[in-house]
Amino acid sequence: MTNRFARRVADLKASEIREILKLTQNPEVISFAGGLPAPETFPVAAVADAAARVLASHGAVALQYATTEGHRPLREWLARFMTQRRGAWVSPDEILITNGSQQGLDLVGKALLDEGDAVLCESPTYVGALNALQVFQPRFVPVPTDDDGMLPEGLDRLLGETERAKMVYAIPDFQNPSGRCWSRERRERVVAVAARHGVPVVEDAPYSELRFAGEPLPSLKSFDQRGTVIHLGTFSKILSPGLRLAWIVAPGWFAKPLNILKSSADLHTSTFTQMVAAEHLAGADLDTHLARIRELYRQRRDVMVQALEREMPAEVRFTRPEGGLFLWVELPARLDARELLPCALARNVAFVPGGSFWARGGGDHTLRLNYSNMPPERIEEGVRRLGEVVREALANADSPGAASARAARRVAAAAARSGRAVPPV
Amino acid sequence: MTNRFARRVADLKASEIREILKLTQNPEVISFAGGLPAPETFPVAAVADAAARVLASHGAVALQYATTEGHRPLREWLARFMTQRRGAWVSPDEILITNGSQQGLDLVGKALLDEGDAVLCESPTYVGALNALQVFQPRFVPVPTDDDGMLPEGLDRLLGETERAKMVYAIPDFQNPSGRCWSRERRERVVAVAARHGVPVVEDAPYSELRFAGEPLPSLKSFDQRGTVIHLGTFSKILSPGLRLAWIVAPGWFAKPLNILKSSADLHTSTFTQMVAAEHLAGADLDTHLARIRELYRQRRDVMVQALEREMPAEVRFTRPEGGLFLWVELPARLDARELLPCALARNVAFVPGGSFWARGGGDHTLRLNYSNMPPERIEEGVRRLGEVVREALANADSPGAASARAARRVAAAAARSGRAVPPV
Repeated sequence: MTNRFARRVADLKASEIREILKLTQNPEVISFAGGLPAPETFPVAAVADAAARVLASHGAVALQYATTEGHRPLREWLARFMTQRRGAWVSPDEILITNGSQQGLDLVGKALLDEGDAVLCESPTYVGALNALQVFQPRFVPVPTDDDGMLPEGLDRLLGETERAKMVYAIPDFQNPSGRCWSRERRERVVAVAARHGVPVVEDAPYSELRFAGEPLPSLKSFDQRGTVIHLGTFSKILSPGLRLAWIVAPGWFAKPLNILKSSADLHTSTFTQMVAAEHLAGADLDTHLARIRELYRQRRDVMVQALEREMPAEVRFTRPEGGLFLWVELPARLDARELLPCALARNVAFVPGGSFWARGGGDHTLRLNYSNMPPERIEEGVRRLGEVVREALANADSPGAASARAARRVAAAAARSGRAVPPV
Repeated sequence: MTNRFARRVADLKASEIREILKLTQNPEVISFAGGLPAPETFPVAAVADAAARVLASHGAVALQYATTEGHRPLREWLARFMTQRRGAWVSPDEILITNGSQQGLDLVGKALLDEGDAVLCESPTYVGALNALQVFQPRFVPVPTDDDGMLPEGLDRLLGETERAKMVYAIPDFQNPSGRCWSRERRERVVAVAARHGVPVVEDAPYSELRFAGEPLPSLKSFDQRGTVIHLGTFSKILSPGLRLAWIVAPGWFAKPLNILKSSADLHTSTFTQMVAAEHLAGADLDTHLARIRELYRQRRDVMVQALEREMPAEVRFTRPEGGLFLWVELPARLDARELLPCALARNVAFVPGGSFWARGGGDHTLRLNYSNMPPERIEEGVRRLGEVVREALANADSPGAASARAARRVAAAAARSGRAVPPV
């Protein structure tokens, strides 16, 4: 039957991460695997009030077809949001509402990528973006990066020598999975380099408001003087992911094809959820709401960092992110995080092996831990069990004969591995 | 800047219909142009109650991420719906929830179509499907069709001689735009022919429950014994389009790639709207609700048919559909519906010229009229004005020298024409 499919389907492999996430639906599992916000941050009562008001006052409009670009009051709110919180002066006309930023990635890939075109990206980078773009069969080209972000010189060189470079993909705020946050100088210079080469930068910014420490930094979009940056924002981490509401800020040259592709893809995003969000946001105290989310996640990050310091062998390194949802862990290079996962799952703890986040392979000894979705006592218990798993693995790895057994296991694992992953978040 | 885009974007042209529909946002315009349901059929109060209950009892779940395939209770309801109303025994596991059937078309195209692959379709056919599939750059091949549906012999011949035939696209119930409804025998034979050739049939069934007269007919899916039919259903015409909720029934071979493509496209459809729909439907009297919609649309169809009989010159032919949302009008062949449109808009009446619905051109003298969204008195007034427009156009067309002027106008119109259209519905 396979020849019934388009060629692009051949590169879509079953997801190992989806299998992990299915297991984490068992409430006994302590899951650090997904990227789920804490549900206690959802403004359930306020959304209920907003939904009631929308349906009472504009029910026939809320349940009817609407324009492709999205609900005008929501786009007006977002234009102010982009100015006030992301330093980018944009008009509502530049904003298109999408079904989550995942759809933004799909539309951007559809608009820009032919088979074999190059996407320049961080490495590791968000596996969901790799999956969305992979549908359009590009080559992924990792850009040299340090703790302050992409290296402008490295990007400049790669843009000069890479054929058919069509897109730079970047997550400058609290990157998924590394937690890294770009410096102000890097932001400005990366945009300038991309602009000089005429290659669009897709700025994926789901975590920008989730900063616990330090000063907020302006978005890449704020440095964009020549229509280089396509900015993706989302309500998933600051309001609710279940509404599936996000937005694209599109430069002028990109707006019309984007609108046609969105219309072809699903006509428009739910009128009802857009109106509920706009109604809620019009009366919401966003500062207080965001402060509450930040405080909760800061506490959980602290708990996880302290637990890792306590429970992990000294050889294990991990980040102390200033925001976002994830910690990034580097095990000793002789360990393979994929091999550790079954042992962790046997103890009812889940994480995501880091290898999936590398477009071109590598990172077998890394893993991603999410701290936003578990309460402190479960974080402590989960990290304690993970510490046991790592210690046991190290003891095995360092036992006589372990090296050759490890090599054999890796060959088997590589053969069995079902390719890149499609996680929900 | 054009070389920034993927090749597929070059074939996306600005939409003439979108311009029409923008004009129809003026409340003075009597619009027969869109495919909008009557908003008075939306169960606004019941949806409000369902939303309140969902958020009160499961707010944290409703606002959180969820599985790609969709909310289980909604899929269970749909499996029963497919059995009871469309004669197809399917399990909830075969159903994936989408953001409207437009997304179903996007996912089906993405899964099946490489550039240059052939899509066999009715002619005329739904312009929104042409737009969704065009993104994947297929060839459209019209299948010989009469008032009972596709001709099985013609389909058999074409499937035998068409290279890279990858999909048959069909709307067997009250087709958009023609209003045509396939006979039972044709349904069975078309599925058998496609199965013999191993080519999937995409059955687009948005109007199946909107039958005013005659007996309900089983879906193509009900005749599918070999996993040939991919069935698209939607809540847009029986509940609300603004929720953007639809479903795909996927044969076994298609389920896994479909799931991965949906996950890559937007992770999943809104948890909140899915749970609201499931909560509403669990307590709804769908029979009574559908009977009310049918009676309203039957009345409006009757009003439009009677007005057309009264107002149109005898040379004008039109359908008397037994269901659905649309009448299909054939003007005398010497008239061009695109040329009539400005005259109609000048009188504040809108329709869609039929030419957009032909994948390979033709139908310049046809037009589509929607009767579901306007109250009877506006239908009567709008058709009266349209009758004037047609009579004037005929008088002009039959005046001395008109033939050569017409030919010149057509050449100019063809040159100016901006290609195929992207209407909202």
